[in-house]
Amino acid sequence: MAKYVYLFGDGKADGAGAMRELLGGKGANLAEMTSIGLPVPPGFTLTTEVCMAFYDNNRNYPAGLLEEVNSALKILEQQMGKGFGDGDNPLLVSVRSGAPASMPGMMDTVLNLGLNDQTIQGVIRQSNDARFAYDSYRRFIQMYANVVKGMDGDILEKLLEEMKEARGVEQDTDLSAEDLHQLVVAFKDSYKATLEEDFPDDPQEQLWGAIGAVFGSWMNPRAVTYRKLHAIPIDWGTAVNVQGMVFGNMGDDCATGVAFTRDPATGENYFYGEYLVNAQGEDVVAGIRTPQPINRDKHRDGDLPSMEEVMPESYAQLVEIREILEQHYKDMQDIEFTIEKGKLYMLQTRTGKRTAHAAIRIAVDMVNQGLISKKEAVLRVDPDQLDQLLHPSLDPNAEKQVIAKGLPASPGAASGQVVFSADDAEEQTRLKKKVILVRIETSPEDIHGMHAARGILTARGGMTSHAAVVARGMGKCCVSGCGDIKIDYEKQLLKTKSGQLIKRGDSITLDGSTGEVILGDVPKVEPEVSGGFATLMSWADEFRRLKVRTNADTPHDSKVAREFGAEGIGLCRTEHMFFEGDRIQAVREMILAGNLEGRKRALDKILPMQKSDFIGIFREMKGLPVTIRLLDPPLHEFLPQTDDDVSELAHAVGIRFSEVKEHVEQLHEFNPMLGHRGCRLAITYPEVYDMQVQAIMEAACELIKNEGFEIVPEIMIPLISHVNELKILRANAVKVADSVCEKYGVKVDYLIGTMIELPRAALTADTIAQEADFFSFGTNDLTQTTYGLSRDDAGHFLPDYIERGVLKKDPFVALDQRGVGQLVKMGFEKGRSTRPELKVGICGEHGGESSSVIFCHKIGLDYVSCSPYRVPIARLAAAHAALQDEH
Amino acid sequence: MAKYVYLFGDGKADGAGAMRELLGGKGANLAEMTSIGLPVPPGFTLTTEVCMAFYDNNRNYPAGLLEEVNSALKILEQQMGKGFGDGDNPLLVSVRSGAPASMPGMMDTVLNLGLNDQTIQGVIRQSNDARFAYDSYRRFIQMYANVVKGMDGDILEKLLEEMKEARGVEQDTDLSAEDLHQLVVAFKDSYKATLEEDFPDDPQEQLWGAIGAVFGSWMNPRAVTYRKLHAIPIDWGTAVNVQGMVFGNMGDDCATGVAFTRDPATGENYFYGEYLVNAQGEDVVAGIRTPQPINRDKHRDGDLPSMEEVMPESYAQLVEIREILEQHYKDMQDIEFTIEKGKLYMLQTRTGKRTAHAAIRIAVDMVNQGLISKKEAVLRVDPDQLDQLLHPSLDPNAEKQVIAKGLPASPGAASGQVVFSADDAEEQTRLKKKVILVRIETSPEDIHGMHAARGILTARGGMTSHAAVVARGMGKCCVSGCGDIKIDYEKQLLKTKSGQLIKRGDSITLDGSTGEVILGDVPKVEPEVSGGFATLMSWADEFRRLKVRTNADTPHDSKVAREFGAEGIGLCRTEHMFFEGDRIQAVREMILAGNLEGRKRALDKILPMQKSDFIGIFREMKGLPVTIRLLDPPLHEFLPQTDDDVSELAHAVGIRFSEVKEHVEQLHEFNPMLGHRGCRLAITYPEVYDMQVQAIMEAACELIKNEGFEIVPEIMIPLISHVNELKILRANAVKVADSVCEKYGVKVDYLIGTMIELPRAALTADTIAQEADFFSFGTNDLTQTTYGLSRDDAGHFLPDYIERGVLKKDPFVALDQRGVGQLVKMGFEKGRSTRPELKVGICGEHGGESSSVIFCHKIGLDYVSCSPYRVPIARLAAAHAALQDEH
Repeated sequence: MAKYVYLFGDGKADGAGAMRELLGGKGANLAEMTSIGLPVPPGFTLTTEVCMAFYDNNRNYPAGLLEEVNSALKILEQQMGKGFGDGDNPLLVSVRSGAPASMPGMMDTVLNLGLNDQTIQGVIRQSNDARFAYDSYRRFIQMYANVVKGMDGDILEKLLEEMKEARGVEQDTDLSAEDLHQLVVAFKDSYKATLEEDFPDDPQEQLWGAIGAVFGSWMNPRAVTYRKLHAIPIDWGTAVNVQGMVFGNMGDDCATGVAFTRDPATGENYFYGEYLVNAQGEDVVAGIRTPQPINRDKHRDGDLPSMEEVMPESYAQLVEIREILEQHYKDMQDIEFTIEKGKLYMLQTRTGKRTAHAAIRIAVDMVNQGLISKKEAVLRVDPDQLDQLLHPSLDPNAEKQVIAKGLPASPGAASGQVVFSADDAEEQTRLKKKVILVRIETSPEDIHGMHAARGILTARGGMTSHAAVVARGMGKCCVSGCGDIKIDYEKQLLKTKSGQLIKRGDSITLDGSTGEVILGDVPKVEPEVSGGFATLMSWADEFRRLKVRTNADTPHDSKVAREFGAEGIGLCRTEHMFFEGDRIQAVREMILAGNLEGRKRALDKILPMQKSDFIGIFREMKGLPVTIRLLDPPLHEFLPQTDDDVSELAHAVGIRFSEVKEHVEQLHEFNPMLGHRGCRLAITYPEVYDMQVQAIMEAACELIKNEGFEIVPEIMIPLISHVNELKILRANAVKVADSVCEKYGVKVDYLIGTMIELPRAALTADTIAQEADFFSFGTNDLTQTTYGLSRDDAGHFLPDYIERGVLKKDPFVALDQRGVGQLVKMGFEKGRSTRPELKVGICGEHGGESSSVIFCHKIGLDYVSCSPYRVPIARLAAAHAALQDEH
Repeated sequence: MAKYVYLFGDGKADGAGAMRELLGGKGANLAEMTSIGLPVPPGFTLTTEVCMAFYDNNRNYPAGLLEEVNSALKILEQQMGKGFGDGDNPLLVSVRSGAPASMPGMMDTVLNLGLNDQTIQGVIRQSNDARFAYDSYRRFIQMYANVVKGMDGDILEKLLEEMKEARGVEQDTDLSAEDLHQLVVAFKDSYKATLEEDFPDDPQEQLWGAIGAVFGSWMNPRAVTYRKLHAIPIDWGTAVNVQGMVFGNMGDDCATGVAFTRDPATGENYFYGEYLVNAQGEDVVAGIRTPQPINRDKHRDGDLPSMEEVMPESYAQLVEIREILEQHYKDMQDIEFTIEKGKLYMLQTRTGKRTAHAAIRIAVDMVNQGLISKKEAVLRVDPDQLDQLLHPSLDPNAEKQVIAKGLPASPGAASGQVVFSADDAEEQTRLKKKVILVRIETSPEDIHGMHAARGILTARGGMTSHAAVVARGMGKCCVSGCGDIKIDYEKQLLKTKSGQLIKRGDSITLDGSTGEVILGDVPKVEPEVSGGFATLMSWADEFRRLKVRTNADTPHDSKVAREFGAEGIGLCRTEHMFFEGDRIQAVREMILAGNLEGRKRALDKILPMQKSDFIGIFREMKGLPVTIRLLDPPLHEFLPQTDDDVSELAHAVGIRFSEVKEHVEQLHEFNPMLGHRGCRLAITYPEVYDMQVQAIMEAACELIKNEGFEIVPEIMIPLISHVNELKILRANAVKVADSVCEKYGVKVDYLIGTMIELPRAALTADTIAQEADFFSFGTNDLTQTTYGLSRDDAGHFLPDYIERGVLKKDPFVALDQRGVGQLVKMGFEKGRSTRPELKVGICGEHGGESSSVIFCHKIGLDYVSCSPYRVPIARLAAAHAALQDEH
């Protein structure tokens, strides 16, 4: 029989840090912290297997769970020296979720569980603080009603506000024990009136209600959204942690806090945390009271006393624990602690979320400290997170009118129009506007808006507030706790300290690295790979086997990509060149020509332009390999569609309107994606590819002859489904290429290969390889055809598919390894079986997504190719892949 | 080293009948006939490998060929007792093509080769007939100029006509030896003037010119067209036969003829042939002189003397040979013979082309004669040819105004508008007109028009004329040799004996089984499987393993299919039901409804109609399995597209025009084939499939409950790409189905399965099988996605692909076994690996095409499903497949 409950406490634990899949991150780390001797309140963890059994079994618990929980509770009572439901010496517990992946703010928690009208007396006696006891009781009822029973939180909050008003006080803390006692009674009455049942007095009933609520919250919409955004599988499930309560709110010798062992925004090796005296943990995170710093080292303004000053002994103990944790985990930790009557308890540790910037600095620093190896450092940085660093930052030379300053909560720079609600952010983004979401503070209900916005600005909350944590997770620029601004949701405006008014729709710019809020849209500069980033990338390059190329169609893109470390061009699309400037006119003439002569005449006009494009790109790539894909889209993409444009074209080329119109209609296709395009065009009109091959080869010959370049052009023929297509087009290309070489008297090595982007090409790759010097998997089209899913049309239903878990990930973002990947693997192996020296890469957008890059490494491809700005991501992912091989 | 030349003669041969791939059909049979002692003029065959080497090597012959041919020629000279180029006793030869598959009229022939101004003297001396000798000479020059040198045939024909005019004669035979001698001189002059070279006098040069022309003709446009129509691979190549000449035109004791050992139109066991006295072979086939019957048994009118009467000894010998050939080949033979000075020579035998009707009768008769076994009989009939029998014939009760009568050259019935040229036939067919092609006689240049026309009528030519042979091959109705009509190409009309005028565009009907030409469009009756056809099919059913189902959407189609032997419905499409009558209105209401309630309201209207459809189909299928596919097409297919229709709809449903228009535009898709359709619709709008499942199950329950039926409905969910889609939709369907069963208090076994029609479904079939009771391969869509080829758009280039040999066959007609078939096999094996009892079939149109059916048998599928009219084809193909297994 499975073991469902794992104990921890008194320096011993059933579980361990490595068991996060089973125990969740929190449970695993509580067990680990207990084992390494840190002061952790005892408790036990219900495993994630219980969660999955619960859902598989129509929301019923597995047999035997009840007995295991009861026996664990017995041990917990002994360790805490208290009794669950004992009126004299009651044990109170917290019930918290803890999934294998950190999901901040997503799951629900119930504290102070075990309180009822009997046990409250024991708490009063034990704490000698009736106010604290009743405050705990009313908090418990509020949380239970809301979290377990789904009762609207405002109902009880309103009673609390009315009480404060009646007593003429502002703060909760100003209410007396009796006031709070009355509130408890009023809360229970309201509970009964709303839910039509009594508030449960039985601690057992409370416990199972809370456990059920945690498991139930795994499927709440916020959790579903978070999982979707972070690609967390629905079947991981959550664990539940039941832990003896300790109290940070039992007086001024109590406190609660959260800290990072290093700065999570910059990565600086500096103990970074916030705490509140006489408070429970939720108070710090929720941003209701502005928290105080734990030390003075870097404290802004200095108007609040630090823990180091107020509680020097506990601070010293915490610093020691920080050291133990970093030595033990060898990574930056995100911790929660509580001080009860001067005694420090660790409530949680977990690997801290950090910005990409911080991730790199921490990794590089830890190598320098001897904590981890270079390999570990490389593995420590999530390749996809680098995306954050590959966006523009503010131009240091630009003029800036700073209108406010807040905390630099998540770095990067963003400009956009101000909006004041998550829904508005989402709506405006759909309308292609760039927006900055401005909120007093954010809550989990705002996640969709944060996701939509370019940046987030909050008036309240610290560096560990919801807004800050979530924004960093999203790699999104955020300025938090900006007390300089007052927000009026009703009037939809914000007012700065200097009295400046910013209305909805006005543009502002955030600098997440300085905390500055700036008027208007400030110019930005391109990112670059330097400093620690460059160091880390150089280590990555030491380990990786997979080459990284780029998809670039212009000399400018080629240059950017080279600076980011691209080792060649894997996909140079030539159709963009057909659209540029006055070329489109010649292209249209070619399409409208009724015969070969007319087409050739038009192509002759395009030839010199294409040639100069290729010269520019070859020069920029300085001898690195360049794969050029011949014309791919269907011809109708080059023709105008509206009658006005058709008429204009008819005038321009001197053909009757009706004739042009007829041409346009004749070229219409029901499914252009599956139509007359790619190599199929060249079978019909070989002269088009002939011109392109001529341009490529003339460009190469001139550079080789006149500038001493070494170039091996790679000519790529798209959309092959049958080897015969390639056989014919290869022969044509060879004929043209050889005649150009002869004309220039230059010997050029060139390769002719093909995209593998249709299932049939992968299935018959052994035959196709007979005619190909290289393969490049076009995984965009291969995904479309393998799924039978048009990317242009999937918007109607694909988001819904992801939302509902039908598909775990968007297959156009992360390569579908089981389906599309199976074809890639098959195509690769069949190709190599025919031609062992076949060069093979991929050039779909998956080439810049880490899980896809790792897959490409695993199956043995030579290279991936991706957009210039994703080259570092691919380099790092390739290193991860190589290092994973070693395990 | 390869052997390129195979000898035959004097009762011995290097080759044999089984070597048709190497020697071509003609060469193999000449060798075989020689071996079994028939009188065959000696000769030798250049193999098909020479042809392929010729094309692979840029039209150069392989090394060693020259020597082999010279040595064969030496032996031929010995056997004929003549010398090639010998002025006293010259050897003349014929040079003919002979491909592995019979290609009548497609390839070129040169006769009388070896004649020059020296050897002509030998021929005159030997034949003692200068007229014959010069006639042979002038024929040789004509053929050589035209066939080998591509000179316009009219140039020399005109000289011949001028000579006849000058001499005041009508027939060629009325010209004297001297006239013909002058013609030879004139021909050579004309040859030199046109081609700017002398006519070759050297017999060796003549021989190699002719051989080169035969090989060259393999790629002429007519041959390419024929191969395309008959799916003959381009790489088979042709052989060349060089054979000693015998002459049917050396006087009245000479003759030439062609015959079938049985009637090729009806299959009757009757010696059927035609001959001409004092003629060369081409004269019979070309239809220039109307040939005489070889016997009187069935001779129409009886105004021409038969061979039986004129040359009784030769006829008796021919009857004996007929017997030998049928006993030897155990099949109906198509023979050519020549009688030279009273001595009979066999020039060719080959398996005779026959109508499907004849094929069946011959096969069944031969079993009854004990010549072949039932299995051989089944294998003897080409499944695809049955198509001919599965078309309508004339209603025997209809009134018919017969305006002319010709030969019943190819059975079946066809009506259409009269056209007088192949180009016109093609053009009108493109405009969706049904046409009858009317020609004085047809030639290979007319093939494209014959292919386009519904039927063919010729004024001249016998049962073995070009028109008759080609029409039978195409399974197309043909009336030939209809002397009752006069055709005026210029005025575009035909005139009957009774003076009736039929203009271009007038409707006529042909009855290919009686030879009748009828005015107007005569009603036709449906085909049925009876008599010999039924016998053969019952034998086929004894041998086959594969089940055959049908694709049927209506009770009528279901009934037809049952009568053709369908064993169930493999694909019942439900979308047709959505279009019918006033349903489309309810469907459109559903689509336009903005919410679930509105959609359900509309679906409630459709439910009873769908239910009654299913009741009708279930009743017709009497307990046989019925697979019903739930809604598949995208919703926009049900909405109007033009503004007028949109406006009408807006009125009808009481919604503003702009709103309906917006809906239509919103549903627009770039690639609907890859869009929001199939199961994707049901993920978004589950209520649609719920309604359909309810209709299916209610129909089943009512029939089971009220009429005692046994029904196991098979519910098929289309367009699955990921198992999760099926998981969700299966659960929905089960819920609805079970609740219907509960409502009726009836226990119904039902199956829920899926189409495998996307590559990803095949690739992940092991997982998908977890949720499927059956698979049905939708090979139409699977072909589209595997090739990345839209069937609706492929018309722009696919014909060109087939024409140029890029693809050998249209993959939408014959399953692409290497690519698409690989996925089918993979999907089948993966599905069975998960669920060994998984029912698997295919329901694409390939299910009625024989090579595809054989593939399905080979990989182990349970059934194929095809259109009702193709069910017998599939049954026979399935039997072929099973019988092939035994070898």
